[in-house]
Amino acid sequence: MFTPAIAEQRFVLESIVRLSEISAEAGEITDAVLEGAGLFAAGEWAPLDRLGDTHGPKWSEQGVTMPAGYAAAYKAYVEGGWGTIGSPAEYGGQGLPVSLSIAVLETLGTANMGFALAPILTVGAIEALAHHGTPEQQALYLPKLATGEWTGTMNLTEPQAGSDVGALKSKAEPVGDGTFRIKGTKIFISFGDHDMADNIVHLVLARTPDAPEGTKGLSLFLVPKYRLNPDGTPGDFNDVRTVSIEHKMGLHASPTCVLSFGDHDDCIGELIGGEMGGIRAMFTMMNNARLNVGLQGVQVAERATQRAVAYARERVQGVRAGAPAAIVEHPDVRRMLLRMKAQTQAARALVYYAFGQLDRGRAGDKAAQARVELLTPLAKAHGTDLGNEVASLGVQVHGGMGYIEETGAAQHFRDARITPIYEGTNGIQAADLVGRKLGMDNGGTLLALLDQMRREAEDAELLRLIDACEEVGRHLLGADTDDRLAASYPFLTMLSVATCGWLMEHQGRVAARSEGDPAFLKMKAAAARFYVEQIVPEAMGLKAAAMAPAELLYSIDAEAFAV
Amino acid sequence: MFTPAIAEQRFVLESIVRLSEISAEAGEITDAVLEGAGLFAAGEWAPLDRLGDTHGPKWSEQGVTMPAGYAAAYKAYVEGGWGTIGSPAEYGGQGLPVSLSIAVLETLGTANMGFALAPILTVGAIEALAHHGTPEQQALYLPKLATGEWTGTMNLTEPQAGSDVGALKSKAEPVGDGTFRIKGTKIFISFGDHDMADNIVHLVLARTPDAPEGTKGLSLFLVPKYRLNPDGTPGDFNDVRTVSIEHKMGLHASPTCVLSFGDHDDCIGELIGGEMGGIRAMFTMMNNARLNVGLQGVQVAERATQRAVAYARERVQGVRAGAPAAIVEHPDVRRMLLRMKAQTQAARALVYYAFGQLDRGRAGDKAAQARVELLTPLAKAHGTDLGNEVASLGVQVHGGMGYIEETGAAQHFRDARITPIYEGTNGIQAADLVGRKLGMDNGGTLLALLDQMRREAEDAELLRLIDACEEVGRHLLGADTDDRLAASYPFLTMLSVATCGWLMEHQGRVAARSEGDPAFLKMKAAAARFYVEQIVPEAMGLKAAAMAPAELLYSIDAEAFAV
Repeated sequence: MFTPAIAEQRFVLESIVRLSEISAEAGEITDAVLEGAGLFAAGEWAPLDRLGDTHGPKWSEQGVTMPAGYAAAYKAYVEGGWGTIGSPAEYGGQGLPVSLSIAVLETLGTANMGFALAPILTVGAIEALAHHGTPEQQALYLPKLATGEWTGTMNLTEPQAGSDVGALKSKAEPVGDGTFRIKGTKIFISFGDHDMADNIVHLVLARTPDAPEGTKGLSLFLVPKYRLNPDGTPGDFNDVRTVSIEHKMGLHASPTCVLSFGDHDDCIGELIGGEMGGIRAMFTMMNNARLNVGLQGVQVAERATQRAVAYARERVQGVRAGAPAAIVEHPDVRRMLLRMKAQTQAARALVYYAFGQLDRGRAGDKAAQARVELLTPLAKAHGTDLGNEVASLGVQVHGGMGYIEETGAAQHFRDARITPIYEGTNGIQAADLVGRKLGMDNGGTLLALLDQMRREAEDAELLRLIDACEEVGRHLLGADTDDRLAASYPFLTMLSVATCGWLMEHQGRVAARSEGDPAFLKMKAAAARFYVEQIVPEAMGLKAAAMAPAELLYSIDAEAFAV
Repeated sequence: MFTPAIAEQRFVLESIVRLSEISAEAGEITDAVLEGAGLFAAGEWAPLDRLGDTHGPKWSEQGVTMPAGYAAAYKAYVEGGWGTIGSPAEYGGQGLPVSLSIAVLETLGTANMGFALAPILTVGAIEALAHHGTPEQQALYLPKLATGEWTGTMNLTEPQAGSDVGALKSKAEPVGDGTFRIKGTKIFISFGDHDMADNIVHLVLARTPDAPEGTKGLSLFLVPKYRLNPDGTPGDFNDVRTVSIEHKMGLHASPTCVLSFGDHDDCIGELIGGEMGGIRAMFTMMNNARLNVGLQGVQVAERATQRAVAYARERVQGVRAGAPAAIVEHPDVRRMLLRMKAQTQAARALVYYAFGQLDRGRAGDKAAQARVELLTPLAKAHGTDLGNEVASLGVQVHGGMGYIEETGAAQHFRDARITPIYEGTNGIQAADLVGRKLGMDNGGTLLALLDQMRREAEDAELLRLIDACEEVGRHLLGADTDDRLAASYPFLTMLSVATCGWLMEHQGRVAARSEGDPAFLKMKAAAARFYVEQIVPEAMGLKAAAMAPAELLYSIDAEAFAV
């Protein structure tokens, strides 16, 4: 029930990312990497997906035990070198473009979405250390993280501090030798503990003594589960206790932990990125993680689509043209399936395009760097919204069987639902878009994107949507904070659909002039047409909300919501 | 965490249903009924909601055991007379309008959605027997069903026959004394077994010998779990075995059973509605059930909204106007909450309006009867779509806590997901709309509704949407079957939003001239404005899809969906 989407990935890497321009080497090995990852994921990770849902990780005083088979499958991932593709070459990685590494990550997560969260978090830790760690920290930790031998975590949330990171209270007291004693409780820590690696590298936001309130007073600490011996091997336990695993609606393969740091005042951490430099270092982790969560939207959409297509081709109900017909032949089921294909492809195009801009930005292209910053909230929020929409359609295609857990469609629906929430809720993404991102270069970053889209787009409705995005964008640039925030989500969706429409229309044109598997190219053309003709017009319907001021929202008191 | 929505229900019964016109008596006792039902549901049913989710019904060879407290709470429902409100007066019911009885049902289902499925199915059985049963059957069964002492079930689905009812294979062999020996397996039977009543009245679609294939050959049978003694008391077991309970994603309080009829060739049923009259009798059950499933959308939306509002008022994150603020004060959270309020009210208005037309139709108003038939697919499909949207927003408002099962938001999200599937998938509803319903009176039923909406609507965008619905409707009337079906779902949504917009705008006008609780009236006005100003324009975005022919869907082969 899992097939790596190799033809799609290759097509997007060529036509949207233009990977060979970023790295000729990467372009040459793309096929081998995609096919190898596909074989690995199908053989080792996909078979564990359902078990991870039904028999998730177990907590005990000794720590978290992963379901049977997970440790071995993780070891195979490390030994296969699948974690090293995008890791820095100076620390044992292959140093290939992120755009290629995320194609591998997509495949892993399509095979087993919860499991693939472990690599995502490790990548975040690598990013933070590579950008903000000292040479000593880098030398000690990065080689192990680059291969995945050790995994990473992000420790932000506390019970009183979710979206409001500035409210967190964990403390870091200087020991006197340059290290800090960490104390505090963190919640919602994905892969906060497990039995698949020799060490776990926690990156922990905490507050040094006398640090100011709010985000400005935050520092980031490197807190290994086991302290390192002088030779770099894991040594003494570092007083990081796993209090519990949360009972989540889905994504059960990923142990979401409550971690207690320093119960016995013996949890030692090292600063990363300097005192009060926590928020900056955190965003280094988080921006990458946000794109990767957008990629999770692609993963779950792809898997849900594959499952629904297989079911719809097999399930016979009713007649068509006088003969019993599989439900894939019925118009409304086809509509759902083509919508699933189109939305999955759109999410993939959006997320991959953003990663391509990231690679170009790292290579020095400042416009590309600005563009990926603009696109990050879109890729995260809209990518995950699409993952949820597609997973829900996947349940619907199955009819009553979709509601029965054994069928598997329900798992995707449950798994998907966290993605619009974590790594910054989609509402936070929308606030980021109309706050920091819209104002970049006085709106120039947005307008440059819209100009390019306008130059290349052909469809009249798509052009109309692009113009509407510009009109709303200019309006919001001049609007006050409340009005901007009230309109942020509809605007984010409009702009995302316009961007996807532009990328899908482009793919349709490429498909029309390409040679290759005719079935693939026809499906690509159909999905592109469906997107432009049916989904793009929907987004125009959001303009009224995107232009509406906040006044209506505040025309009633908070208490009135309860009547 | 549960408050009966009495002010809302009263307002809708007055302004939309105009209940007093239907029954002066009902109008007079409305307050007492709503308040009594609210007290009962809050006291007896709501406290069991979570337990039903976490510790659902249990199967054993002896049958299904409900969770602790359910049998007693059901008994209290029967003894309180809550089942009798809409039941026929000649059989011990109160014979009040359905519109009033469904307000009670809404309250019960908001308190405990899964539990309230038992009354819904019993009402379906009452309808079928009241319309198609013999006087003897009515005399024996209806008094017990009218009070809820016995419960009813609908047995349609078989493994090979879901949406395709005509494919079912269960058999009914004449015994010679007018009764039939029933044999077959039925799946997805809600409350197919339980321990809350002395008897369960199964209504079973099956095929008599030599009956033709397809739906025309179906007959409906009354198959009690226990055969009746001559004095009407339950006697011998009727060979109806509960094979298993399905493992569903949600709605766990409702045991969804696989039932095997006649394992020992000793399952006796009686015809209802004459041989080959099964489909007609089934639709009597089902049309009512479809509206009631639309009402489940209202239930889950109301409960999810209440929970999200309570959380948003309590949860402090970030600052506003220089002070720590509950998240209800933040613009995007307000947008979500106001959307939840507006969509819940819209769903309620649509469903209650349809039930009001049902009552008028029963009183002889032929136009109202036609209108409820037209509105049934809208109320079912759009009501449940809104239930799902609102439940999902409810999770989102909770942020990370929404994904944790203990919070409760996730349960509503899981519970809601079955409603677009059962009692005819929403795709089947859309097919019903563009098939049978659109063509009623050569389109006259639709046009009469649109004409009334156009006469009363004031908002320019709403008028534009109404015109667009007419344009699409006229187009589809002349379109071929595939084109109609391909466009059916977008058209259903457009028409539903137009209808809701009309009803919400009307409520806004009524609120503006009403006296009463100012907080309620201001919220009603705000929700009505939000619906008309922000949700109505979204539906215009569906016009392109509603006008698109099926050609694109069939431009690719079924196999190509798998590439």
